[in-house]
Amino acid sequence: MQTATYHGKGDVRIEERPDPEVKNATDAVVRITHTAICGSDLWYYRGQRDHPENSPIGHEPMGIVEDVGDAVRHVEPGDRVLAPFTISCGSCEFCRKGLTTSCVNGSSWGGDESGAQGEKIRVPHAGGTLVRVPDRYKDNEKTLEALLPLTDVMCTGHHAAVSAGVDTGDTAVVIGDGAVGLCGVLASKRRGAERIIAMGHHEDRLEIAESFGATEIISARGEQAITEARDQTYGGADHVLECVGTESSMETAAAVARPGGSVGYVGVPMGVKDTEFLRTMFSKNISLAGGIAPARSYIDDLMNDILQGTLDPSPVFTKTVELDDIPEGYRAMDERNAVKVMVKVDRSG
Amino acid sequence: MQTATYHGKGDVRIEERPDPEVKNATDAVVRITHTAICGSDLWYYRGQRDHPENSPIGHEPMGIVEDVGDAVRHVEPGDRVLAPFTISCGSCEFCRKGLTTSCVNGSSWGGDESGAQGEKIRVPHAGGTLVRVPDRYKDNEKTLEALLPLTDVMCTGHHAAVSAGVDTGDTAVVIGDGAVGLCGVLASKRRGAERIIAMGHHEDRLEIAESFGATEIISARGEQAITEARDQTYGGADHVLECVGTESSMETAAAVARPGGSVGYVGVPMGVKDTEFLRTMFSKNISLAGGIAPARSYIDDLMNDILQGTLDPSPVFTKTVELDDIPEGYRAMDERNAVKVMVKVDRSG
Repeated sequence: MQTATYHGKGDVRIEERPDPEVKNATDAVVRITHTAICGSDLWYYRGQRDHPENSPIGHEPMGIVEDVGDAVRHVEPGDRVLAPFTISCGSCEFCRKGLTTSCVNGSSWGGDESGAQGEKIRVPHAGGTLVRVPDRYKDNEKTLEALLPLTDVMCTGHHAAVSAGVDTGDTAVVIGDGAVGLCGVLASKRRGAERIIAMGHHEDRLEIAESFGATEIISARGEQAITEARDQTYGGADHVLECVGTESSMETAAAVARPGGSVGYVGVPMGVKDTEFLRTMFSKNISLAGGIAPARSYIDDLMNDILQGTLDPSPVFTKTVELDDIPEGYRAMDERNAVKVMVKVDRSG
Repeated sequence: MQTATYHGKGDVRIEERPDPEVKNATDAVVRITHTAICGSDLWYYRGQRDHPENSPIGHEPMGIVEDVGDAVRHVEPGDRVLAPFTISCGSCEFCRKGLTTSCVNGSSWGGDESGAQGEKIRVPHAGGTLVRVPDRYKDNEKTLEALLPLTDVMCTGHHAAVSAGVDTGDTAVVIGDGAVGLCGVLASKRRGAERIIAMGHHEDRLEIAESFGATEIISARGEQAITEARDQTYGGADHVLECVGTESSMETAAAVARPGGSVGYVGVPMGVKDTEFLRTMFSKNISLAGGIAPARSYIDDLMNDILQGTLDPSPVFTKTVELDDIPEGYRAMDERNAVKVMVKVDRSG
């Protein structure tokens, strides 16, 4: 099969690799039809995080089941399925609690074998990991494109809103206008927030935020952005979604939160020191919740909304490429010419 | 009047200062009878934090009302009162919500005029700040000594337990064997925790922890302490009380928390970087709640328990001094020869 592989900073290639096969009774093999490039893929692409060279990449798989091990019961060859960005067994303490990212049998995609940005992928713990798209919708392209963000960014934005405690009638500030921040806006709207203030620096993305339900937009930077957010919320918002993870975005989150409020954070924290951030959180008794999104636990609920047509995160895909053009997709995201790139992999059509 | 004043690292003196007077209609003046030296007083005493020189110090006042302004209704001269470590108005948004430390009219004790480690203190916003001890108990020395920790450490330990979400039947790990950590043990016990694992390094303090309800003790350090706590909790505790605030104690808190658990933190964070702490919190979806304890909001509830005899934090006072010996009290705490020092100020007796 052909698959995208990583070869060092800025170097993503399409290469031939052996077809993955069912190894364990709980495995499935899926022929990828749709996948995506993630903001977190840019970390290694930009050399900001180590990643094994020569390894297949991608963690947002959707496709058609090709083969299953003997223990796999809920899907069979021919089913349309998708999977979140982490693998989970579905039956351990943490999976039962809905914290699938802490699955005791869990792992990440990729490594030596197969990633989601390729023609095929081996899915360990298929019973816990794979979600079947109902047959009625399995070949509806528009629905599939709306479902694809459930593999990562829609669940991650939702986790930010859940962790920030956003509920009916609330005011929420969403920090970050990347795909996750935009999904955070959508999730806040879905949870009934009355006012959603989106903070970011890109006009095209903030337009998507407005179409997703943002009632106000702040495009200023630094202290000015903080002042505007505080003014608009009469001193701070009870609910802040931190969808970036840098020191300055975390400090902004703390600064615009109302005393006693909550910050839901889903951007991996990078270089955050306590000098400003934790001190502000401490002095205002702002709670911090969130972390890596247990996407698998959210998919069923969010999928229902997508299938019934009340939720559609697909506008985060502002560019679509084919398998061979994945390197171009990385470049587009790196240069911020695309919010998020969808990859249509299927070569059988 | 005589009052303790700060003159630089390691230099606390007893000096003559003008008697404080009622300045505003909402003021009261209290003749201090009991007060205490706080672990946080050691920050400036040790030169770890700037503090205005020549200023009166102390923030844990208990005494007899001497005078009140025209707008003060709930106390009158002769009443026994106590006040928490911050001043709050009692009527703003945050006071009404129970977050008195974010009072929009709030302030700290001390500064130019009068502190709690002196003969008298001016109390701004007396209506919001002062708590009256019921007349029946106002001269019961044993009760007063049990009530004194409500001015700070008992409420702070309680805040850690509340913020960590400790409830009936839970297992809690308490990090830190200072007065706040010990009160965190007591608060966890009061909230119905079934297992309370106290972590610290001082045998005498850990004995108090046991008398306060700790069911297990961990006196190891570093990785060994983490391993022991994880072993004892089969992988981590759902509730962790962080009562220190250093980078290593915060990292320990994150490390011994169960995925999806909560850390309640009340030690002012000092020098915490995200390298370990926030990354661990993020990857395990551990929430962080707490901050500076809104003591005023907790006092009424905790006082009821103390008055009915079901709560007694007074064993945290392992040394008692008179006003003139406050400098000796600081030395004893600095050298860890006392957990917490009570000061009996009243010279009228």
